[in-house]
Amino acid sequence: MTIPASVDPVRIQEVLDGRWAHVRRAVREQLDDAAFTPVPGESMAEARARTTALAGRLAGTDAVTLGFPAQYGGRDDAGGSVTAVEMLAFTDLSLMVKAGVQWGLFGGAVQALGTRRHHDEFLPAIMSFELPGCFAMTETGHGSDVQQLRTTCTYDPATETFDLHTPHEAARKDYIGNAARDGRMAVVFAQLITGGEGRGVHAWLVPIRDEAGNPLPGVTIGDDGPKAGLLGVDNGRLTFDHVRVPREMLLDRHGSVAPDGTYTSSIENETRRFFTMLGTLVRGRVSVAGSAGSATKVALEIAVRYGDTRRQFTAPGEPREVVINDYRVHQRKLLPVLARTYALHFAQEELVSAMHDVQGAADLDEAAQRELESRAAGLKAATTWHATRTIQLCREACGGAGYLAENRLPGLKADTDVFTTFEGDNTVLLQLVAKGLLTGYRDAFGSLDGWGKVAFVAEQVRETVLERTAARGLIQRLVDAVPGREDDVALTDRGWQLAAFEDREKHILDGAIKRLRRNATRKDITPFDVFNDVQDHVLRAAQAHIDRVVLEAFVAGIERAADPAARALLERVCDLFALSTIEADKGWFLQHGRLTPARAKALTGAVNELLGELRPHMRTLVDAFAIRDSWLACAILTEEPARQEAMAAHDAATDREMAPAR
Amino acid sequence: MTIPASVDPVRIQEVLDGRWAHVRRAVREQLDDAAFTPVPGESMAEARARTTALAGRLAGTDAVTLGFPAQYGGRDDAGGSVTAVEMLAFTDLSLMVKAGVQWGLFGGAVQALGTRRHHDEFLPAIMSFELPGCFAMTETGHGSDVQQLRTTCTYDPATETFDLHTPHEAARKDYIGNAARDGRMAVVFAQLITGGEGRGVHAWLVPIRDEAGNPLPGVTIGDDGPKAGLLGVDNGRLTFDHVRVPREMLLDRHGSVAPDGTYTSSIENETRRFFTMLGTLVRGRVSVAGSAGSATKVALEIAVRYGDTRRQFTAPGEPREVVINDYRVHQRKLLPVLARTYALHFAQEELVSAMHDVQGAADLDEAAQRELESRAAGLKAATTWHATRTIQLCREACGGAGYLAENRLPGLKADTDVFTTFEGDNTVLLQLVAKGLLTGYRDAFGSLDGWGKVAFVAEQVRETVLERTAARGLIQRLVDAVPGREDDVALTDRGWQLAAFEDREKHILDGAIKRLRRNATRKDITPFDVFNDVQDHVLRAAQAHIDRVVLEAFVAGIERAADPAARALLERVCDLFALSTIEADKGWFLQHGRLTPARAKALTGAVNELLGELRPHMRTLVDAFAIRDSWLACAILTEEPARQEAMAAHDAATDREMAPAR
Repeated sequence: MTIPASVDPVRIQEVLDGRWAHVRRAVREQLDDAAFTPVPGESMAEARARTTALAGRLAGTDAVTLGFPAQYGGRDDAGGSVTAVEMLAFTDLSLMVKAGVQWGLFGGAVQALGTRRHHDEFLPAIMSFELPGCFAMTETGHGSDVQQLRTTCTYDPATETFDLHTPHEAARKDYIGNAARDGRMAVVFAQLITGGEGRGVHAWLVPIRDEAGNPLPGVTIGDDGPKAGLLGVDNGRLTFDHVRVPREMLLDRHGSVAPDGTYTSSIENETRRFFTMLGTLVRGRVSVAGSAGSATKVALEIAVRYGDTRRQFTAPGEPREVVINDYRVHQRKLLPVLARTYALHFAQEELVSAMHDVQGAADLDEAAQRELESRAAGLKAATTWHATRTIQLCREACGGAGYLAENRLPGLKADTDVFTTFEGDNTVLLQLVAKGLLTGYRDAFGSLDGWGKVAFVAEQVRETVLERTAARGLIQRLVDAVPGREDDVALTDRGWQLAAFEDREKHILDGAIKRLRRNATRKDITPFDVFNDVQDHVLRAAQAHIDRVVLEAFVAGIERAADPAARALLERVCDLFALSTIEADKGWFLQHGRLTPARAKALTGAVNELLGELRPHMRTLVDAFAIRDSWLACAILTEEPARQEAMAAHDAATDREMAPAR
Repeated sequence: MTIPASVDPVRIQEVLDGRWAHVRRAVREQLDDAAFTPVPGESMAEARARTTALAGRLAGTDAVTLGFPAQYGGRDDAGGSVTAVEMLAFTDLSLMVKAGVQWGLFGGAVQALGTRRHHDEFLPAIMSFELPGCFAMTETGHGSDVQQLRTTCTYDPATETFDLHTPHEAARKDYIGNAARDGRMAVVFAQLITGGEGRGVHAWLVPIRDEAGNPLPGVTIGDDGPKAGLLGVDNGRLTFDHVRVPREMLLDRHGSVAPDGTYTSSIENETRRFFTMLGTLVRGRVSVAGSAGSATKVALEIAVRYGDTRRQFTAPGEPREVVINDYRVHQRKLLPVLARTYALHFAQEELVSAMHDVQGAADLDEAAQRELESRAAGLKAATTWHATRTIQLCREACGGAGYLAENRLPGLKADTDVFTTFEGDNTVLLQLVAKGLLTGYRDAFGSLDGWGKVAFVAEQVRETVLERTAARGLIQRLVDAVPGREDDVALTDRGWQLAAFEDREKHILDGAIKRLRRNATRKDITPFDVFNDVQDHVLRAAQAHIDRVVLEAFVAGIERAADPAARALLERVCDLFALSTIEADKGWFLQHGRLTPARAKALTGAVNELLGELRPHMRTLVDAFAIRDSWLACAILTEEPARQEAMAAHDAATDREMAPAR
């Protein structure tokens, strides 16, 4: 069906709002206040003070407490809690990160890793922000490989306390939000040693500042100072010099130490235990992915609306200059990333839903948990790289105006830049996805060093079997309905697109497996090189996998569209996402005989045709993001239309007598 | 020849230093002072004050006056002047831009567009910085299409003055460096009207502030406020309310107005005159391209050196963790962009040389001038996009540390971001290159509105004939020596690579020409769509052209390498540039039968092999950039090696008893 001339953005918004529409509505209302608008040009001290004050305004409200247990005033709503963070990210990103640190990471760790006594004693004050805290995991020397943290926490049965210690500068806690200014306690991750034996990484709740805000004895607090962005977040460094920590402050849900130093855990294997602990913290990654999506939407809203009013260069026979969204190359910049933003939105929504259900299940389904972690890792990488790239494109699409802080884009760019490397470096996350694919999620999370167990991995890799995501039945029907892989199937056939994505994933993965197996038998390379030689291939498999998951989520999401016009528009956006993704990897499809040269050429034509079809709906597509004016803080959006009108009126009145001969 | 185990970076540096090695050496010495190190975390006011003070230190020295006429104390050395700017860009980018505004744009406009009386009266004070000035061309409503500026300057014979006026807000001068704080005069571009007739854009030298720094009557000065970066540059807005400008202040080299209002110019055609005026300002674009290169080199130096010390994840049987530069995927990130940085360096060097010779020639060679402008436009686009992308990659390659201002990368990223849209929006510049290709430089610069004269263009487009750049003979010999285009030619055969680049350019351009011709005869599309329909195709032609020019410059540049080891290394870097460029556009080569699937697969293998070969030389390749320690201001470079040593010593001493079982 062709797209009707006019589509109501509200109908699209309803589809986007999805399962947590009620949360989105409520938080939109709560945040519809100029106080939440970012303030450009602040000093670091000003930004920190304002951000802390704003966090105080959120304290205790649903916007930050949905995920906590009902008995402490929360709503046990994991999905709602990350949706609320995603909404916060439409406003000030420092505030989003500050809230994420306090209620997501710090509060979330106490909730997930602590037990009843920790909850009773600390959750109320955490939820009310009376107890600002830190999540002190990363060290200067270990960010990605946190299993290898060097901070130690050694149990002493004589005093029934732990000795928390930073042995050298590489072991200091670094980049820790809430540390430089506000934090009074920290969840500190360290190597637990008891009875002279290392038990792997555990977490303790450790006071770091007194009531007056001074560091406690043995605690040295540093400031990470100015950063590229997120000036309102007080990232800092923590060093511990033999700090005494009471035995009860070990967050002991997954491992505990008796007064005599005996260690017990319900999870025998140390590495498995570590990854189970990490797994409970998946919400952080899901929140970052969602927030990246929100920032991307704000940038697109600005670029698309500006591009609809800004004019440059004349066209023959036209009285006014050409609106820049009318240029093919401008459409080529904005529309494919807009389509991908939609696709990622649906994938994110599906991820949040899966997380909510897995975490809310009565019994832990370990396979589902592993798959969830893999999905979260992959989508976090995809959405944050997409954000960095898209915000950059939008900045450039607004020219010099896009470089001025008053037009918001510099802040969006600077604030989200770190998303690609925090809460897991994207490249490392892709590797984690790849390992999941190679092992069918069985032991993928055994260790992230990866290289260490390569021969093992290469032997046990399963035959590739694709597991479909949501709406399996629907997608299978679409794929089955493709008349064949002949060249005469329309490029816009959804089944053909789905099959193409699926086929690419499977083939790349099969190829990587073959190479790994071959390498594992080679005597001429080191064990490290067995895997390293295939690393780029394996990561491509992960990327193809993520693309497939995202397309399937888009297809499933469109099913929610009740309004025919909205549905028709979404179908075209999905076409553009699918075809521009294939076009971007045309080399692979041609190299593997999946596209003939003629069809590859037709593909470029089809993408261009979609750009033309979607051009009249660009504004509708960003309006559907339901971004409040109070969050936009973008001078060009308010000023440019008036300027263009003034110029047109003046030109008409003076008949442009000063203009050069054309 | 294989690369020797050790290559002396000084031998490489000598090749890179090239024709203006003496300038590079002198400016390196002059700037080897911690005062020129960027200062992170400053307020805008602090940054502006410091930048102005530093500019004062440069005033009158060769670093900023080489390009001025000898009779005023300069050295008539155009090439030297842009080389000096390129060196400045290794230090503080605000300083580079501030200097570029004062001596390059403002001083350069007075020099190029003014005549003897302007030179005598103003150049000495401009060179000494006693007269800080602005280059007021861009308006809020017209950045790319400056021929359509709306500011007017109307001659009044009665008073023998001009009336300079901003008719509406879209016509205000915007983003003007030196305007918000320091500028005392401005070169203002406006539509000249005399005798009731528009004569097109001209430039006047206009006082804007009095001695005390207050705006002069009729002049309103605004501040662009905080920006993404370049905080030390005081960009502002200028609005003129019927400001009287003496007749003598018209910079009248290309057009003058007699006391009675009679207009005369040596260039009849108004559009031609306009582009001749613009053409003399090509130095700005060349300087930005060079500066983008310097910033890219600093980022690569940081990422490569950090990657050589930073370790993460263990490898089987290795006592220490793996150095991250050893990972294939990390090499895939850093080495191809490092190779392209080398390639662009040689292309830039060739461009500077061409500019120097064209501008120094006794007679104006208009064709050479047009080709120079096209080359400058294309390389400016290529180098600045490359800078944005590479600095981003380097930031991510340093993880969380890369996000801290103390590690320099945030500043590099923020400061260079605007390079892609200032001194010509990159997309518009590519279009300019494309028009040059379509018309053989004949009338390419007639008008940038482009769309207006499409039918004309489409009819007169010449058959594609590639004109080779430097070292034509050498390149022709290499191409001729290719045994054929058979699949058995080595991928590392330089002639094959050159032929592949050339073939791609020609084919894409031919295709665009065919489509333009076809469109020009169509009755079903608007004149605007005749060109717009092909816009993406035409820009791809421009990009393929630039790639070819860059590869040829690299090949020619290697000829300067006297040292065999240096040469062997450069040859491999050139291979990586050529093959990774082909790999990135594999889709095109496959689609057009230039690569078989088998050869495309081999190509990926060849690139990976080159990564392995170049891995041991990464440090050498960045050392050859000769970046002084005093410019680096990067904490991780000084701190990370010591941290890693401390950790290794501590681990060895404690035998890592706290580490988890592997």
